[in-house]
Amino acid sequence: MEFKDRLNNYIREIDGYLKVFFPREEDIPRDIIEAMEYSIFAGGKRLRPILLIEGAKSIGGNIKRVLPLACALEMIHTYSLIHDDLPSMDNDDFRRGKPTNHKVFGEGMAILAGDGLLNYSYELMINNIPKDIVEMKNYIEGMKEIARAAGIMGMIGGQVKDLEYEGKDMDIDTLHYIHSHKTGALIRASLRAGAIASGANNNELTALTIYGEKLGLAFQIVDDILDIIGNVAKLGKPIGSDKDNKKLTYPNIYGLEESKAIIDRLLSEALEAISIFGSKAKFLEELGVFICKRDY
Amino acid sequence: MEFKDRLNNYIREIDGYLKVFFPREEDIPRDIIEAMEYSIFAGGKRLRPILLIEGAKSIGGNIKRVLPLACALEMIHTYSLIHDDLPSMDNDDFRRGKPTNHKVFGEGMAILAGDGLLNYSYELMINNIPKDIVEMKNYIEGMKEIARAAGIMGMIGGQVKDLEYEGKDMDIDTLHYIHSHKTGALIRASLRAGAIASGANNNELTALTIYGEKLGLAFQIVDDILDIIGNVAKLGKPIGSDKDNKKLTYPNIYGLEESKAIIDRLLSEALEAISIFGSKAKFLEELGVFICKRDY
Repeated sequence: MEFKDRLNNYIREIDGYLKVFFPREEDIPRDIIEAMEYSIFAGGKRLRPILLIEGAKSIGGNIKRVLPLACALEMIHTYSLIHDDLPSMDNDDFRRGKPTNHKVFGEGMAILAGDGLLNYSYELMINNIPKDIVEMKNYIEGMKEIARAAGIMGMIGGQVKDLEYEGKDMDIDTLHYIHSHKTGALIRASLRAGAIASGANNNELTALTIYGEKLGLAFQIVDDILDIIGNVAKLGKPIGSDKDNKKLTYPNIYGLEESKAIIDRLLSEALEAISIFGSKAKFLEELGVFICKRDY
Repeated sequence: MEFKDRLNNYIREIDGYLKVFFPREEDIPRDIIEAMEYSIFAGGKRLRPILLIEGAKSIGGNIKRVLPLACALEMIHTYSLIHDDLPSMDNDDFRRGKPTNHKVFGEGMAILAGDGLLNYSYELMINNIPKDIVEMKNYIEGMKEIARAAGIMGMIGGQVKDLEYEGKDMDIDTLHYIHSHKTGALIRASLRAGAIASGANNNELTALTIYGEKLGLAFQIVDDILDIIGNVAKLGKPIGSDKDNKKLTYPNIYGLEESKAIIDRLLSEALEAISIFGSKAKFLEELGVFICKRDY
Protein backbone atom coordinates (compact mmCIF):
# COMPACT_ATOMS: atom_id res chain seq x y z
CA MET A 1 0.00 0.00 0.00
CA GLU A 2 1.24 3.49 -0.78
CA PHE A 3 2.36 5.63 2.14
CA LYS A 4 -0.42 8.16 1.53
CA ASP A 5 -3.06 5.43 1.86
CA ARG A 6 -1.48 4.04 4.99
CA LEU A 7 -1.39 7.56 6.43
CA ASN A 8 -5.08 8.01 5.69
CA ASN A 9 -5.87 4.72 7.42
CA TYR A 10 -3.85 5.90 10.41
CA ILE A 11 -5.82 9.17 10.50
CA ARG A 12 -9.09 7.22 10.48
CA GLU A 13 -7.76 5.03 13.29
CA ILE A 14 -7.02 8.13 15.41
CA ASP A 15 -10.49 9.50 14.63
CA GLY A 16 -11.84 6.26 16.08
CA TYR A 17 -9.81 6.63 19.30
CA LEU A 18 -10.95 10.24 19.63
CA LYS A 19 -14.56 9.11 19.40
CA VAL A 20 -13.97 6.48 22.08
CA PHE A 21 -12.37 9.00 24.44
CA PHE A 22 -14.85 11.79 23.76
CA PRO A 23 -17.10 12.66 26.73
CA ARG A 24 -20.58 11.16 26.62
CA GLU A 25 -22.04 11.77 30.08
CA GLU A 26 -25.73 12.70 29.98
CA ASP A 27 -25.28 15.53 32.45
CA ILE A 28 -23.28 17.66 29.98
CA PRO A 29 -25.20 20.39 28.08
CA ARG A 30 -25.68 19.25 24.45
CA ASP A 31 -24.55 22.59 22.99
CA ILE A 32 -20.99 22.39 24.24
CA ILE A 33 -20.61 18.79 23.14
CA GLU A 34 -21.72 19.83 19.66
CA ALA A 35 -19.33 22.77 19.57
CA MET A 36 -16.42 20.62 20.75
CA GLU A 37 -17.24 17.82 18.30
CA TYR A 38 -17.58 20.26 15.41
CA SER A 39 -13.94 21.30 15.70
CA ILE A 40 -12.37 18.04 16.82
CA PHE A 41 -13.91 16.12 13.91
CA ALA A 42 -13.30 18.82 11.28
CA GLY A 43 -10.81 16.83 9.22
CA GLY A 44 -7.59 17.39 11.16
CA LYS A 45 -4.47 15.59 9.93
CA ARG A 46 -3.85 14.08 13.41
CA LEU A 47 -0.12 14.75 13.08
CA ARG A 48 0.42 15.15 16.83
CA PRO A 49 -1.26 11.92 17.99
CA ILE A 50 0.49 10.03 15.19
CA LEU A 51 3.87 11.42 16.25
CA LEU A 52 3.14 10.56 19.88
CA ILE A 53 2.23 6.97 19.05
CA GLU A 54 5.24 6.62 16.73
CA GLY A 55 7.50 8.07 19.44
CA ALA A 56 6.32 5.27 21.71
CA LYS A 57 6.66 2.65 18.94
CA SER A 58 10.23 3.68 18.15
CA ILE A 59 11.33 2.38 21.55
CA GLY A 60 8.96 -0.59 21.59
CA GLY A 61 6.40 1.01 23.93
CA ASN A 62 2.86 -0.17 24.66
CA ILE A 63 0.61 1.79 22.28
CA LYS A 64 -2.57 1.25 24.27
CA ARG A 65 -0.99 2.94 27.29
CA VAL A 66 -0.23 6.16 25.44
CA LEU A 67 -3.50 6.54 23.50
CA PRO A 68 -5.06 8.85 26.12
CA LEU A 69 -1.99 11.10 25.87
CA ALA A 70 -2.22 11.06 22.07
CA CYS A 71 -5.89 12.00 22.03
CA ALA A 72 -5.39 14.63 24.74
CA LEU A 73 -2.72 16.27 22.57
CA GLU A 74 -5.12 16.50 19.65
CA MET A 75 -7.75 18.08 21.93
CA ILE A 76 -5.19 20.63 23.13
CA HIS A 77 -4.23 21.39 19.52
CA THR A 78 -7.91 21.79 18.59
CA TYR A 79 -8.75 24.11 21.50
CA SER A 80 -5.81 26.31 20.50
CA LEU A 81 -7.18 26.58 16.94
CA ILE A 82 -10.67 27.53 18.19
CA HIS A 83 -9.30 30.30 20.42
CA ASP A 84 -6.77 31.40 17.79
CA ASP A 85 -9.55 31.91 15.22
CA LEU A 86 -11.58 34.22 17.50
CA PRO A 87 -12.21 37.82 16.35
CA SER A 88 -9.95 39.22 19.08
CA MET A 89 -7.13 36.90 17.98
CA ASP A 90 -6.58 35.99 14.30
CA ASN A 91 -10.21 36.70 13.34
CA ASP A 92 -10.58 33.85 10.86
CA ASP A 93 -13.97 32.95 9.38
CA PHE A 94 -12.89 29.68 7.80
CA ARG A 95 -10.65 26.77 8.68
CA ARG A 96 -10.17 23.74 6.44
CA GLY A 97 -12.94 25.09 4.23
CA LYS A 98 -15.53 25.13 7.03
CA PRO A 99 -16.80 28.12 9.05
CA THR A 100 -14.77 28.53 12.24
CA ASN A 101 -16.25 27.51 15.59
CA HIS A 102 -17.37 30.99 16.68
CA LYS A 103 -19.01 31.58 13.28
CA VAL A 104 -21.26 28.58 13.90
CA PHE A 105 -21.77 28.61 17.68
CA GLY A 106 -21.07 32.25 18.62
CA GLU A 107 -18.05 33.70 20.38
CA GLY A 108 -19.08 32.88 23.94
CA MET A 109 -19.70 29.24 23.16
CA ALA A 110 -16.46 29.00 21.14
CA ILE A 111 -14.49 30.27 24.14
CA LEU A 112 -16.21 27.70 26.37
CA ALA A 113 -15.73 24.91 23.81
CA GLY A 114 -12.00 25.70 23.81
CA ASP A 115 -11.90 25.79 27.61
CA GLY A 116 -13.88 22.56 27.67
CA LEU A 117 -11.47 20.78 25.34
CA LEU A 118 -8.41 21.98 27.25
CA ASN A 119 -9.81 20.92 30.60
CA TYR A 120 -11.09 17.64 29.21
CA SER A 121 -7.66 16.82 27.76
CA TYR A 122 -6.33 16.84 31.32
CA GLU A 123 -9.31 14.88 32.65
CA LEU A 124 -8.57 12.28 29.99
CA MET A 125 -4.86 12.10 30.82
CA ILE A 126 -5.36 12.05 34.59
CA ASN A 127 -8.18 9.50 34.50
CA ASN A 128 -6.03 7.08 32.51
CA ILE A 129 -2.88 7.06 34.63
CA PRO A 130 -1.78 3.38 34.70
CA LYS A 131 -1.96 1.42 37.96
CA ASP A 132 1.44 -0.27 37.69
CA ILE A 133 3.96 1.82 39.59
CA VAL A 134 6.72 1.93 36.92
CA GLU A 135 4.25 2.63 34.14
CA MET A 136 2.58 5.23 36.37
CA LYS A 137 5.79 7.15 36.94
CA ASN A 138 6.74 7.12 33.25
CA TYR A 139 3.24 8.20 32.23
CA ILE A 140 3.33 11.09 34.70
CA GLU A 141 6.61 12.28 33.17
CA GLY A 142 4.89 12.13 29.77
CA MET A 143 2.05 14.30 31.12
CA LYS A 144 4.56 16.84 32.43
CA GLU A 145 6.10 17.08 28.97
CA ILE A 146 2.72 17.78 27.36
CA ALA A 147 1.56 20.21 30.05
CA ARG A 148 4.69 22.32 29.78
CA ALA A 149 4.64 22.38 25.97
CA ALA A 150 0.97 23.43 25.93
CA GLY A 151 1.40 26.29 28.40
CA ILE A 152 2.90 29.75 28.71
CA MET A 153 6.41 28.27 28.39
CA GLY A 154 5.36 26.64 25.12
CA MET A 155 2.41 27.04 22.79
CA ILE A 156 0.56 29.79 24.67
CA GLY A 157 3.84 31.73 24.93
CA GLY A 158 4.09 31.57 21.13
CA GLN A 159 0.50 32.74 20.71
CA VAL A 160 1.17 35.70 23.01
CA LYS A 161 4.17 36.84 20.96
CA ASP A 162 2.22 36.31 17.75
CA LEU A 163 -0.61 38.51 19.09
CA GLU A 164 1.83 41.20 20.24
CA TYR A 165 3.54 41.42 16.86
CA GLU A 166 0.40 41.37 14.74
CA GLY A 167 0.84 43.92 11.96
CA LYS A 168 4.27 44.90 13.28
CA ASP A 169 7.75 44.29 11.85
CA MET A 170 9.51 41.47 13.62
CA ASP A 171 13.13 40.41 13.77
CA ILE A 172 14.34 36.91 13.02
CA ASP A 173 14.64 36.00 16.73
CA THR A 174 10.99 36.82 17.33
CA LEU A 175 9.95 34.85 14.26
CA HIS A 176 11.97 31.91 15.52
CA TYR A 177 10.43 32.21 19.00
CA ILE A 178 6.92 32.18 17.52
CA HIS A 179 7.60 29.17 15.27
CA SER A 180 9.37 27.14 17.91
CA HIS A 181 6.72 27.86 20.55
CA LYS A 182 3.39 28.25 18.76
CA THR A 183 3.67 25.06 16.69
CA GLY A 184 7.12 23.61 17.43
CA ALA A 185 6.59 22.99 21.13
CA LEU A 186 3.62 20.63 20.72
CA ILE A 187 5.24 18.73 17.83
CA ARG A 188 8.41 18.24 19.86
CA ALA A 189 6.34 17.19 22.88
CA SER A 190 4.31 14.73 20.78
CA LEU A 191 7.40 12.73 19.90
CA ARG A 192 8.94 13.04 23.35
CA ALA A 193 5.85 12.38 25.50
CA GLY A 194 5.04 9.06 23.82
CA ALA A 195 8.62 7.90 24.34
CA ILE A 196 8.92 9.28 27.89
CA ALA A 197 5.68 7.57 28.90
CA SER A 198 7.17 4.35 27.53
CA GLY A 199 10.35 4.71 29.58
CA ALA A 200 12.76 6.08 26.95
CA ASN A 201 16.40 6.69 27.92
CA ASN A 202 18.26 9.94 27.22
CA ASN A 203 19.80 8.86 23.92
CA GLU A 204 16.46 7.80 22.56
CA LEU A 205 14.86 11.04 23.69
CA THR A 206 17.60 13.14 22.13
CA ALA A 207 17.14 11.35 18.81
CA LEU A 208 13.38 11.97 18.81
CA THR A 209 13.87 15.58 19.89
CA ILE A 210 16.25 16.26 17.00
CA TYR A 211 13.85 14.58 14.59
CA GLY A 212 10.95 16.67 15.96
CA GLU A 213 12.79 19.98 15.83
CA LYS A 214 14.25 19.49 12.34
CA LEU A 215 10.98 18.23 10.94
CA GLY A 216 8.97 20.98 12.65
CA LEU A 217 11.13 23.63 11.00
CA ALA A 218 11.10 21.85 7.62
CA PHE A 219 7.31 21.63 7.81
CA GLN A 220 7.12 25.39 8.39
CA ILE A 221 9.37 26.18 5.42
CA VAL A 222 7.40 23.84 3.17
CA ASP A 223 4.25 25.68 4.24
CA ASP A 224 5.80 29.05 3.45
CA ILE A 225 6.85 27.82 0.01
CA LEU A 226 3.40 26.40 -0.71
CA ASP A 227 1.91 29.73 0.41
CA ILE A 228 3.97 31.64 -2.13
CA ILE A 229 3.35 29.18 -4.95
CA GLY A 230 -0.32 29.08 -4.05
CA ASN A 231 -0.54 32.87 -4.17
CA VAL A 232 1.27 33.02 -7.48
CA ALA A 233 -1.09 30.46 -8.99
CA LYS A 234 -4.20 31.99 -7.44
CA LEU A 235 -3.52 35.68 -7.92
CA GLY A 236 -1.43 35.45 -11.06
CA LYS A 237 1.16 37.73 -9.49
CA PRO A 238 4.86 37.13 -9.87
CA ILE A 239 6.78 36.41 -6.66
CA GLY A 240 8.04 39.55 -4.98
CA SER A 241 5.32 41.81 -6.27
CA ASP A 242 3.16 42.36 -3.20
CA LYS A 243 3.50 43.16 0.46
CA ASP A 244 3.04 39.54 1.53
CA ASN A 245 6.49 38.91 0.17
CA LYS A 246 7.96 41.30 2.69
CA LYS A 247 6.89 38.83 5.39
CA LEU A 248 9.85 37.34 7.21
CA THR A 249 9.94 33.77 5.89
CA TYR A 250 12.69 31.43 4.73
CA PRO A 251 11.76 31.73 1.02
CA ASN A 252 11.71 35.53 1.28
CA ILE A 253 15.04 35.66 3.10
CA TYR A 254 16.93 32.88 1.31
CA GLY A 255 15.02 32.51 -1.96
CA LEU A 256 13.12 29.47 -3.19
CA GLU A 257 15.99 27.26 -4.28
CA GLU A 258 18.09 27.78 -1.15
CA SER A 259 14.98 27.14 0.98
CA LYS A 260 14.45 23.82 -0.74
CA ALA A 261 18.07 22.93 -0.07
CA ILE A 262 17.55 23.78 3.61
CA ILE A 263 14.52 21.48 3.72
CA ASP A 264 16.59 18.65 2.24
CA ARG A 265 19.32 19.21 4.81
CA LEU A 266 16.82 19.28 7.70
CA LEU A 267 15.22 16.08 6.44
CA SER A 268 18.49 14.17 6.23
CA GLU A 269 19.48 15.37 9.72
CA ALA A 270 16.08 14.23 11.04
CA LEU A 271 16.42 10.80 9.41
CA GLU A 272 20.00 10.44 10.59
CA ALA A 273 18.88 11.07 14.19
CA ILE A 274 16.22 8.35 14.24
CA SER A 275 18.37 5.79 12.41
CA ILE A 276 19.29 4.41 15.87
CA PHE A 277 15.79 2.91 16.10
CA GLY A 278 16.19 0.85 12.92
CA SER A 279 12.95 -0.51 11.48
CA LYS A 280 10.94 0.56 14.56
CA ALA A 281 11.05 4.13 13.22
CA LYS A 282 10.17 3.19 9.65
CA PHE A 283 6.90 5.11 9.72
CA LEU A 284 8.61 8.24 11.09
CA GLU A 285 11.13 8.01 8.25
CA GLU A 286 8.45 7.75 5.60
CA LEU A 287 6.44 10.52 7.24
CA GLY A 288 9.47 12.83 7.19
CA VAL A 289 10.00 12.21 3.50
CA PHE A 290 6.28 12.66 2.81
CA ILE A 291 6.15 16.01 4.63
CA CYS A 292 9.29 17.39 2.99
CA LYS A 293 8.47 16.25 -0.53
CA ARG A 294 5.00 17.72 -0.78
CA ASP A 295 4.28 19.17 -4.21
CA TYR A 296 6.18 22.34 -4.92
CA MET B 1 -8.10 36.97 67.85
CA GLU B 2 -11.47 37.52 66.19
CA PHE B 3 -12.45 35.11 63.42
CA LYS B 4 -12.45 37.88 60.82
CA ASP B 5 -8.82 38.73 61.61
CA ARG B 6 -7.77 35.09 61.54
CA LEU B 7 -9.53 34.74 58.19
CA ASN B 8 -7.62 37.74 56.82
CA ASN B 9 -4.34 36.26 58.00
CA TYR B 10 -5.29 33.01 56.28
CA ILE B 11 -6.02 34.90 53.04
CA ARG B 12 -2.60 36.57 53.21
CA GLU B 13 -1.00 33.17 53.80
CA ILE B 14 -2.66 31.81 50.63
CA ASP B 15 -1.50 34.90 48.71
CA GLY B 16 2.01 33.98 49.79
CA TYR B 17 1.68 30.39 48.53
CA LEU B 18 0.26 31.65 45.23
CA LYS B 19 3.31 33.88 44.80
CA VAL B 20 5.63 30.95 45.49
CA PHE B 21 3.86 28.74 42.96
CA PHE B 22 3.47 31.44 40.31
CA PRO B 23 5.57 30.86 37.14
CA ARG B 24 8.80 32.84 36.97
CA GLU B 25 10.74 31.34 34.05
CA GLU B 26 12.58 33.97 32.00
CA ASP B 27 11.43 32.46 28.72
CA ILE B 28 7.77 33.46 29.27
CA PRO B 29 6.57 36.68 27.55
CA ARG B 30 6.22 39.44 30.20
CA ASP B 31 2.76 40.52 29.00
CA ILE B 32 0.99 37.29 29.81
CA ILE B 33 2.62 37.07 33.23
CA GLU B 34 1.36 40.58 33.96
CA ALA B 35 -2.15 39.76 32.75
CA MET B 36 -2.25 36.56 34.82
CA GLU B 37 -0.88 38.30 37.92
CA TYR B 38 -3.33 41.17 37.57
CA SER B 39 -6.31 38.87 38.05
CA ILE B 40 -4.84 36.34 40.46
CA PHE B 41 -3.72 39.06 42.88
CA ALA B 42 -6.85 41.19 42.55
CA GLY B 43 -8.04 40.70 46.13
CA GLY B 44 -9.80 37.35 45.92
CA LYS B 45 -11.21 35.87 49.13
CA ARG B 46 -9.34 32.57 48.56
CA LEU B 47 -12.38 30.60 49.69
CA ARG B 48 -11.54 27.56 47.54
CA PRO B 49 -7.91 27.07 48.64
CA ILE B 50 -8.96 27.61 52.26
CA LEU B 51 -11.68 24.98 51.95
CA LEU B 52 -9.25 22.57 50.32
CA ILE B 53 -6.69 22.97 53.08
CA GLU B 54 -9.36 22.70 55.77
CA GLY B 55 -10.74 19.58 54.09
CA ALA B 56 -7.28 18.04 54.44
CA LYS B 57 -6.92 19.29 58.05
CA SER B 58 -10.26 17.84 59.09
CA ILE B 59 -8.85 14.34 58.61
CA GLY B 60 -5.37 15.17 59.89
CA GLY B 61 -3.76 15.42 56.43
CA ASN B 62 -0.37 16.87 55.52
CA ILE B 63 -1.04 20.48 54.50
CA LYS B 64 2.19 20.94 52.57
CA ARG B 65 1.23 18.06 50.26
CA VAL B 66 -2.06 19.64 49.20
CA LEU B 67 -0.85 23.24 48.73
CA PRO B 68 -0.28 22.79 44.97
CA LEU B 69 -3.86 21.52 44.62
CA ALA B 70 -5.14 24.46 46.67
CA CYS B 71 -3.30 27.03 44.56
CA ALA B 72 -4.26 25.29 41.32
CA LEU B 73 -7.93 25.54 42.32
CA GLU B 74 -7.60 29.30 42.86
CA MET B 75 -5.99 29.61 39.41
CA ILE B 76 -8.85 27.66 37.85
CA HIS B 77 -11.36 29.89 39.63
CA THR B 78 -9.52 33.01 38.43
CA TYR B 79 -9.31 31.89 34.79
CA SER B 80 -13.06 31.24 34.86
CA LEU B 81 -13.71 34.80 36.08
CA ILE B 82 -11.49 36.30 33.34
CA HIS B 83 -13.31 34.38 30.59
CA ASP B 84 -16.71 34.97 32.20
CA ASP B 85 -16.17 38.74 32.17
CA LEU B 86 -15.41 38.85 28.41
CA PRO B 87 -17.72 40.88 26.13
CA SER B 88 -19.06 37.72 24.48
CA MET B 89 -19.90 36.25 27.88
CA ASP B 90 -21.11 38.41 30.81
CA ASN B 91 -19.52 41.57 29.38
CA ASP B 92 -18.42 43.05 32.71
CA ASP B 93 -16.15 46.10 32.89
CA PHE B 94 -15.40 45.88 36.60
CA ARG B 95 -14.69 43.17 39.14
CA ARG B 96 -13.96 43.84 42.79
CA GLY B 97 -13.81 47.55 41.94
CA LYS B 98 -11.04 47.13 39.37
CA PRO B 99 -11.33 47.10 35.57
CA THR B 100 -11.70 43.54 34.28
CA ASN B 101 -8.76 41.78 32.64
CA HIS B 102 -9.80 42.44 29.01
CA LYS B 103 -10.40 46.13 29.81
CA VAL B 104 -6.74 46.45 30.82
CA PHE B 105 -4.97 43.98 28.52
CA GLY B 106 -7.37 43.63 25.58
CA GLU B 107 -9.65 40.74 24.71
CA GLY B 108 -7.06 38.57 22.94
CA MET B 109 -4.63 38.74 25.85
CA ALA B 110 -7.42 38.12 28.38
CA ILE B 111 -8.39 34.93 26.56
CA LEU B 112 -4.74 33.82 26.56
CA ALA B 113 -4.27 34.79 30.22
CA GLY B 114 -7.26 32.60 31.08
CA ASP B 115 -5.92 29.74 28.96
CA GLY B 116 -2.51 30.25 30.55
CA LEU B 117 -3.91 30.05 34.09
CA LEU B 118 -5.97 26.95 33.33
CA ASN B 119 -3.07 25.13 31.72
CA TYR B 120 -0.65 26.27 34.43
CA SER B 121 -2.97 24.99 37.16
CA TYR B 122 -2.50 21.51 35.70
CA GLU B 123 1.25 21.98 35.28
CA LEU B 124 1.38 22.91 38.95
CA MET B 125 -0.66 19.90 40.06
CA ILE B 126 1.16 17.42 37.83
CA ASN B 127 4.64 18.73 38.67
CA ASN B 128 3.97 18.29 42.40
CA ILE B 129 2.70 14.72 42.46
CA PRO B 130 4.33 13.17 45.57
CA LYS B 131 6.97 10.45 45.14
CA ASP B 132 5.67 8.12 47.86
CA ILE B 133 3.40 5.55 46.26
CA VAL B 134 0.45 5.79 48.68
CA GLU B 135 0.58 9.58 48.75
CA MET B 136 0.89 9.56 44.96
CA LYS B 137 -2.25 7.51 44.47
CA ASN B 138 -4.29 9.64 46.88
CA TYR B 139 -3.04 12.85 45.31
CA ILE B 140 -3.99 11.59 41.82
CA GLU B 141 -7.52 10.90 43.07
CA GLY B 142 -7.60 14.48 44.37
CA MET B 143 -6.56 15.77 40.94
CA LYS B 144 -9.34 13.75 39.30
CA GLU B 145 -11.86 15.39 41.63
CA ILE B 146 -10.67 18.88 40.69
CA ALA B 147 -10.40 18.15 36.95
CA ARG B 148 -13.94 16.82 36.75
CA ALA B 149 -15.42 19.69 38.79
CA ALA B 150 -13.66 22.28 36.61
CA GLY B 151 -14.80 20.81 33.30
CA ILE B 152 -17.88 20.36 31.15
CA MET B 153 -19.40 18.04 33.78
CA GLY B 154 -18.92 20.80 36.39
CA MET B 155 -18.11 24.49 36.22
CA ILE B 156 -17.91 24.85 32.43
CA GLY B 157 -21.23 23.00 32.13
CA GLY B 158 -22.76 25.61 34.45
CA GLN B 159 -21.28 28.46 32.40
CA VAL B 160 -22.73 26.98 29.22
CA LYS B 161 -26.24 26.82 30.68
CA ASP B 162 -25.85 30.33 32.07
CA LEU B 163 -24.84 31.61 28.61
CA GLU B 164 -27.74 29.80 26.94
CA TYR B 165 -30.32 31.25 29.30
CA GLU B 166 -29.03 34.82 29.29
CA GLY B 167 -32.03 37.13 29.09
CA LYS B 168 -34.43 34.18 28.97
CA ASP B 169 -36.89 32.87 31.55
CA MET B 170 -35.60 29.83 33.36
CA ASP B 171 -37.28 27.18 35.45
CA ILE B 172 -36.15 26.19 38.94
CA ASP B 173 -34.34 23.07 37.67
CA THR B 174 -32.19 25.14 35.31
CA LEU B 175 -31.45 27.65 38.08
CA HIS B 176 -30.40 24.81 40.32
CA TYR B 177 -28.23 23.28 37.58
CA ILE B 178 -26.44 26.61 37.06
CA HIS B 179 -25.86 27.18 40.80
CA SER B 180 -24.71 23.67 41.54
CA HIS B 181 -22.39 23.55 38.53
CA LYS B 182 -21.10 27.08 37.93
CA THR B 183 -20.06 27.74 41.54
CA GLY B 184 -21.16 24.70 43.54
CA ALA B 185 -18.97 22.15 41.75
CA LEU B 186 -15.66 23.83 42.58
CA ILE B 187 -16.65 24.52 46.20
CA ARG B 188 -17.66 20.91 46.68
CA ALA B 189 -14.45 19.76 44.98
CA SER B 190 -12.34 22.06 47.18
CA LEU B 191 -13.48 20.31 50.33
CA ARG B 192 -13.37 16.85 48.81
CA ALA B 193 -10.06 17.08 46.92
CA GLY B 194 -8.04 18.10 49.98
CA ALA B 195 -9.49 15.22 51.93
CA ILE B 196 -9.20 12.68 49.09
CA ALA B 197 -5.55 13.62 48.54
CA SER B 198 -5.03 13.00 52.26
CA GLY B 199 -6.59 9.53 52.10
CA ALA B 200 -10.09 10.22 53.46
CA ASN B 201 -12.52 7.33 53.88
CA ASN B 202 -16.11 7.38 52.57
CA ASN B 203 -17.73 8.61 55.80
CA GLU B 204 -15.34 11.50 56.02
CA LEU B 205 -15.91 12.40 52.37
CA THR B 206 -19.67 12.26 52.76
CA ALA B 207 -19.50 14.63 55.74
CA LEU B 208 -17.40 17.15 53.82
CA THR B 209 -19.61 16.81 50.74
CA ILE B 210 -22.74 17.58 52.75
CA TYR B 211 -21.02 20.54 54.40
CA GLY B 212 -19.88 21.82 50.98
CA GLU B 213 -23.28 21.45 49.31
CA LYS B 214 -25.27 23.00 52.17
CA LEU B 215 -22.82 25.85 52.60
CA GLY B 216 -22.60 26.47 48.85
CA LEU B 217 -26.36 26.88 48.63
CA ALA B 218 -26.52 29.01 51.80
CA PHE B 219 -23.78 31.23 50.39
CA GLN B 220 -25.84 31.73 47.22
CA ILE B 221 -29.00 32.66 49.14
CA VAL B 222 -27.05 35.08 51.35
CA ASP B 223 -25.71 36.70 48.17
CA ASP B 224 -29.20 37.01 46.72
CA ILE B 225 -30.47 38.61 49.93
CA LEU B 226 -27.55 41.05 50.05
CA ASP B 227 -28.25 41.89 46.39
CA ILE B 228 -31.84 42.85 47.18
CA ILE B 229 -30.94 44.80 50.30
CA GLY B 230 -28.09 46.48 48.40
CA ASN B 231 -30.47 47.46 45.61
CA VAL B 232 -33.06 48.76 48.05
CA ALA B 233 -30.45 50.87 49.82
CA LYS B 234 -28.85 52.06 46.61
CA LEU B 235 -31.90 52.70 44.46
CA GLY B 236 -34.32 53.60 47.22
CA LYS B 237 -36.90 51.26 45.71
CA PRO B 238 -39.07 49.00 47.79
CA ILE B 239 -38.60 45.26 47.28
CA GLY B 240 -40.78 43.87 44.50
CA SER B 241 -41.01 47.08 42.50
CA ASP B 242 -38.71 46.36 39.56
CA LYS B 243 -37.97 43.61 37.07
CA ASP B 244 -34.89 42.42 38.96
CA ASN B 245 -37.26 41.07 41.52
CA LYS B 246 -38.78 38.76 38.96
CA LYS B 247 -35.43 36.96 38.84
CA LEU B 248 -35.71 33.43 40.07
CA THR B 249 -34.01 33.57 43.49
CA TYR B 250 -34.82 32.17 46.93
CA PRO B 251 -35.82 35.56 48.39
CA ASN B 252 -38.12 36.23 45.43
CA ILE B 253 -39.68 32.79 45.62
CA TYR B 254 -39.88 32.32 49.39
CA GLY B 255 -39.63 35.88 50.72
CA LEU B 256 -36.92 37.35 52.91
CA GLU B 257 -37.85 35.82 56.28
CA GLU B 258 -38.34 32.28 54.97
CA SER B 259 -35.05 32.56 53.04
CA LYS B 260 -33.23 33.46 56.25
CA ALA B 261 -34.82 30.46 57.93
CA ILE B 262 -33.61 28.27 55.08
CA ILE B 263 -30.07 29.62 55.54
CA ASP B 264 -30.21 28.79 59.26
CA ARG B 265 -31.39 25.28 58.50
CA LEU B 266 -28.66 24.74 55.88
CA LEU B 267 -26.04 26.01 58.32
CA SER B 268 -27.06 23.68 61.09
CA GLU B 269 -27.13 20.72 58.70
CA ALA B 270 -23.64 21.67 57.48
CA LEU B 271 -22.30 21.91 61.04
CA GLU B 272 -24.00 18.68 62.05
CA ALA B 273 -22.28 16.86 59.17
CA ILE B 274 -18.76 17.93 60.12
CA SER B 275 -19.25 17.37 63.85
CA ILE B 276 -17.65 13.92 63.33
CA PHE B 277 -14.27 15.66 62.94
CA GLY B 278 -14.43 17.31 66.38
CA SER B 279 -11.97 20.13 66.93
CA LYS B 280 -10.13 19.39 63.66
CA ALA B 281 -13.00 21.06 61.80
CA LYS B 282 -13.20 24.06 64.13
CA PHE B 283 -12.23 26.50 61.40
CA LEU B 284 -14.83 25.09 58.99
CA GLU B 285 -17.45 25.53 61.70
CA GLU B 286 -16.53 29.15 62.30
CA LEU B 287 -16.31 29.80 58.57
CA GLY B 288 -19.81 28.41 58.08
CA VAL B 289 -21.23 30.67 60.76
CA PHE B 290 -19.31 33.64 59.37
CA ILE B 291 -20.65 33.11 55.83
CA CYS B 292 -24.26 32.62 56.94
CA LYS B 293 -24.34 35.50 59.40
CA ARG B 294 -23.07 38.22 57.09
CA ASP B 295 -24.86 41.53 57.63
CA TYR B 296 -28.42 41.50 56.42
